[in-house]
Amino acid sequence: MRVAYQGERGAFSESAARRLLGREITPVPKETFEEMFASVAEGDADCCVAPIENSLAGSIHRNYDLLLESQLTIAGETHLRIVHNLIAPPGVALEQIRRVYSHPVALAQCGRFLRNHSGLTAMPVHDTAGAVRIVMERGGVEEAAIASADAAEIYGGRILASSVEDHARNFTRFLVLADAEHAQAIVERSAARKWKTSMIFRLPNRPGALFRALGAFAMFDVDLTKIESRPVEGQPWEYAFYADVAGRTDERNVARALDALDGMAEMLRVLGSYPSRWLAS
Amino acid sequence: MRVAYQGERGAFSESAARRLLGREITPVPKETFEEMFASVAEGDADCCVAPIENSLAGSIHRNYDLLLESQLTIAGETHLRIVHNLIAPPGVALEQIRRVYSHPVALAQCGRFLRNHSGLTAMPVHDTAGAVRIVMERGGVEEAAIASADAAEIYGGRILASSVEDHARNFTRFLVLADAEHAQAIVERSAARKWKTSMIFRLPNRPGALFRALGAFAMFDVDLTKIESRPVEGQPWEYAFYADVAGRTDERNVARALDALDGMAEMLRVLGSYPSRWLAS
Repeated sequence: MRVAYQGERGAFSESAARRLLGREITPVPKETFEEMFASVAEGDADCCVAPIENSLAGSIHRNYDLLLESQLTIAGETHLRIVHNLIAPPGVALEQIRRVYSHPVALAQCGRFLRNHSGLTAMPVHDTAGAVRIVMERGGVEEAAIASADAAEIYGGRILASSVEDHARNFTRFLVLADAEHAQAIVERSAARKWKTSMIFRLPNRPGALFRALGAFAMFDVDLTKIESRPVEGQPWEYAFYADVAGRTDERNVARALDALDGMAEMLRVLGSYPSRWLAS
Repeated sequence: MRVAYQGERGAFSESAARRLLGREITPVPKETFEEMFASVAEGDADCCVAPIENSLAGSIHRNYDLLLESQLTIAGETHLRIVHNLIAPPGVALEQIRRVYSHPVALAQCGRFLRNHSGLTAMPVHDTAGAVRIVMERGGVEEAAIASADAAEIYGGRILASSVEDHARNFTRFLVLADAEHAQAIVERSAARKWKTSMIFRLPNRPGALFRALGAFAMFDVDLTKIESRPVEGQPWEYAFYADVAGRTDERNVARALDALDGMAEMLRVLGSYPSRWLAS
């Protein structure tokens, strides 16, 4: 299976893709999220794996927008813990390292480690896996990178220190996105038995509109696992909502709740029903 | 007024601070969000200005956490449009530029501009304002930075191209945070007449819990302007909620709604009532 993702070989998205779809996938790395979506639409990849929210940095609205613009559906999810490692060429010792390359967000997340090793200078680059590639290509004894264990393996680097991040509870939620046919095949391979259904909807701008909309789920005993308002661009006081619920659209209570919501909403788009790794674990 | 923020002189947070509190503030730049909060707690700054959500990248959970851990209250808000500019030393022409320095997120947000000027190489650095400082210190004719207009002014750079970002609708919402006494003084200076109240609450893990909680607002005709669920760390199925409503806690309907919510919630923390620039504009 050809799986597109944003980033270089060894990016955290690639780790999420292997966890979701197996070690044997064919990686299709893309520079931007737009190119990643385009590669699936044009048939250069069978699906893509996109980060959609992070436990420190919130929902990635750009990917919600691209999903909404696309014809793709959600076929699965996983929550990946973001573990940062100090990676150098084999034979290099921690004491030799002077410069540490990574994405500035990763460097900031490892601030304590870098401050505790005062001889280290943080060197910003475009991405974490790319930092490992650069350090391995140069092969110097004073340079290391901060990136995933998968990136170390792919580029032949050695992990000198693992879990060097300040906050252990840094999780990113990734979605598998595919057209209806590929989504069906991916869903059928999954062993997870709990399901989730994701949607985006817009409500008329009236007091209590969201209260009534959530009443649709409460009436039919459908559990909400995520709700988030987002202002509609250029429309003050108008909001779109992201919602995830437990269950799948072919269960009777979920179908009835969605029917009721559809009757109240100005727009409702179901983004997919899919096995949930989070609920199963 | 001494105002702390995360980033170097000329950071977008400093622009937000001037917009909220006037041009004459004394900037107190801090390297991390933690140091920014600490500087207010220790009396080295009178307040701080913190980004709390972005229209492309979602809520900044880390700052919600730090706000919750602190004794600070919200004294104001503003939504700043993130406008990126190409900035070089005076006398340098666009055609001479070969390398463009900025934070990788800013470079990615200006992908179209960079691709359309094929002679330009993107050079990642720790932050946008720092990129201007570096380029101005070196004073070369082949280097430029991407950053705010304020950063250009502070470091004496010249704007060669303005609004070079791909998406014009990139807004960051900033909050002013202070202790009760300073917050009172800041709120009194504001000319905005619309108010907002922000809160964080946790609900017992029961079906329909959020539906009933929002009923407290619906019953008393209080308008919700933001709602967002966030999983509670280490507690699967437990959620905290961020909510913003129109009005202030000393209005009778808001007070009654908060009383009703408090009766249902496992935890409720009101983060402040403050004049809203968004609603007023």
